[in-house]
Order: sequence, then structure tokens, then C-alpha cells
Amino acid sequence: MSKDTAPRTSIRVPSAHGDATRQHILEVAGRLYADGGRDSVTSKQVCTAAAVNLAGVNYHFGSREGLYTAVLVEAHRRLFSRAALSAIADGAGDARAKLGQVIDTLVGGIGQDGWHLRVFVRELISPSPALDTMILVEAGPKLAILKSLLAEAMGLEADDVRLARCFLSTFAPCMMLLIANKSVLGRVMGQLWQDPPALARHLKTFAFAGLDAAVRAPA
Amino acid sequence: MSKDTAPRTSIRVPSAHGDATRQHILEVAGRLYADGGRDSVTSKQVCTAAAVNLAGVNYHFGSREGLYTAVLVEAHRRLFSRAALSAIADGAGDARAKLGQVIDTLVGGIGQDGWHLRVFVRELISPSPALDTMILVEAGPKLAILKSLLAEAMGLEADDVRLARCFLSTFAPCMMLLIANKSVLGRVMGQLWQDPPALARHLKTFAFAGLDAAVRAPA
Repeated sequence: MSKDTAPRTSIRVPSAHGDATRQHILEVAGRLYADGGRDSVTSKQVCTAAAVNLAGVNYHFGSREGLYTAVLVEAHRRLFSRAALSAIADGAGDARAKLGQVIDTLVGGIGQDGWHLRVFVRELISPSPALDTMILVEAGPKLAILKSLLAEAMGLEADDVRLARCFLSTFAPCMMLLIANKSVLGRVMGQLWQDPPALARHLKTFAFAGLDAAVRAPA
Repeated sequence: MSKDTAPRTSIRVPSAHGDATRQHILEVAGRLYADGGRDSVTSKQVCTAAAVNLAGVNYHFGSREGLYTAVLVEAHRRLFSRAALSAIADGAGDARAKLGQVIDTLVGGIGQDGWHLRVFVRELISPSPALDTMILVEAGPKLAILKSLLAEAMGLEADDVRLARCFLSTFAPCMMLLIANKSVLGRVMGQLWQDPPALARHLKTFAFAGLDAAVRAPA
């Protein structure tokens, strides 16, 4: 395997040590971006906070933009891993059962509190060029799986205009629970988190009834 | 009426001129907070950008914290005005028809793009002490109206544990459409905004079917 001293122009085969350093920089940068927003964080700040050489960002991420893009991709990965989603999609059961498992998994992730949520939401309200890369490499493939499950569960073609609306209605409540600040939502919405299994049951009951009604309604 | 030169300790009766100045400072501060976040904006920056005397913030808002709180309250007001909501709640029709009008109004607000959305979402992902005031004076009364409409439409008592969950499922899709960046959501979710009346119809169909199912399901 190549060393950390390999020339930057070569295709780098990651070493265990290099991976650990990369991951460490990613964590430190993620927290800084979450607190201050991407524009206020310099590579120097990241390297100082991570206690790595100033060339560390460039070595592992190519540039400051490369670092931010990697952080954003990692943020989406932590929101819902592609491996978990693929396992559900490739597993047993019909499309509706699989959608139910996705909702269960999303509810299971509620209450996590990490930099990834704030980095993700900051990017959504104020998009940067890194968003296109994140959608391409991380969010897009996962959304395609979800849309395909939804189409199958509803018996609709992939280009049916109702799919995007049903996607929104099915997953917006889960997403809001995932990304909202728990104490804020708790103060205005009451005890949503007291009984996660009941919450997951509710989300599935509501969504499946809504999907049935949407299929019956005119497009 | 008192003048802008009235002592700060008196109870100020707003003058038309004072109100215009106050509103101007609020607008300028709202844009600055939306871009930079509350912690990075000083009263001096606001006064410079608004071209008002440095005492202007303190005169109209008491302090930097007072200014931010006023901006946050104004942000929620622009999201959905209490006057519009009260008019629906006090108007004709049953609770379900009124919920439908609320959804129509929320969909009607989609596509607006102002500082209020970003200030609001920034506060939600990273709450400040001003949030309690905003909830108390602005969000709370509106949420109480919505929850009461929902309870009436579902035939549930005000303390039923299902209400908070149904509130989430009914309004999260509308909220997400309101606060999300349109171009981002469009890129990943397709043409949600092409046909606003169809979108509003869908949201109502989905929500009412979900509410019916939630009432039938065990709590």
C-alpha cells in the first residue's frame, strides 16, 4: 500500500493510517462546519483543530472544496446508510413491507445528534456547488431506491406525476423528525418520542392510508 | 405621539416614522441574520447596513438580543400569519374544511423566498434563547389553533396522544415545501411545484385518509 508520503498526483491506495487521519479530519471539519457554516471555516482552522499538518486537507481531500464535499457526502451517509437501504430493498417481503422497514429504520435514527444533521440542513437552506456532487454520489442512488419501492407499492409507473408528491407525504414527517432539534420540536409538538414503536406504527398507518387514497384519486 | 427622541425608559407609543424605521432595521437585520447566522451579526453592522444611528437598535429593540428576537418573531409571522389562520378558524365550514383551507394557504406560500425562511430554519437547527419568546408570542398561539382544528376534525380529546403524531404527519410535508430550497428539492424530487392546485389536492387527500386511518388505529 502507498504511504502518506506518496506523491499527490498518484492514485492513492488508502493505508489504514491514512484512512484514520482522513476520518479524523472529516470529523473535526464536520463539527466546525456544523457550528460555523461552510464559509467561515478555513483549511487552516481545520488542520489546527485536528492537529494535523497544514497540507493534510489538500493531501486527503484535494482542496478546501473537496473537504467540504466529502463532509457533506458523509453527512448524508450518516442520515441513512446506503448499505442499510440496499439490504431492505434486496431483502424479503413486498414493496409495502419494505417501505415499512425504511420508516422503522428512519424512526430508529431519531434522537441521534451529530454534526451531520446540522451540516446537511445548512446545505439544504443555503446550497453550495458541493450539493450536486452529494446528490450524484450519495443522495441520488438512495432516492432512486426509495422511489422505485414507492412505485412498486402503489402500482404506478416510474414517471407518474403522483410519485413525487407521495414521496414527499411519506417521508417528510420522518425527515423532519430526523433533522429537527428534538427539544424544539418537543416543546411545540409534545411527546412524539416517548414511544418510538407507536410513532413508527402511526407513520406507517398514516402513510399507507394516504398512499391508497392517492392511487384512487385522479392524477 | 412620542418622538424618536423620547427617553428610552418611557413606554413608547409608536409614531408612523418610528415604525417605518423599526421595520427598516428589522428587514436589514433579517437579511444579515439569514446570510451570516445570528452570532456573526453585530448591532453595528445592522446600523451601518440600515444607515441608521448606532443607537437605533437599542432605541427600537432594547438590545442586540431584542433585535434578534423581533426578527425571529417576524420570520414566523411571515411563514403563516396569525390573522390568516384566525380568519380560517373563525370562518364557515367544519373543522376538516378549515384544515383544508390551511393546507391551501400553506401551499399558496410555497415558492416565496425571503430571509424569514432561512432565519427560521437556522433557529430550528441551532436554537437560541430567543426561541422561547418566539414560541410564546407567535408560534404557540398558531399551533394551538391548528391542534384544536385537528382534534375537532378527528373527534379526539385535546390531550389524545395521537394528536401530536397526526399534527406531524399532516403538516410536515407543507412545512418542508415552505422552508426547503426550491431548486434543491426540485432536483431530487421532481416537479412538485408545476401544478400547485394538484399539489394542494394531493396533500389534502393524503392527510385526510391518514387522519381517518389514525383515528381507527389503536392509540
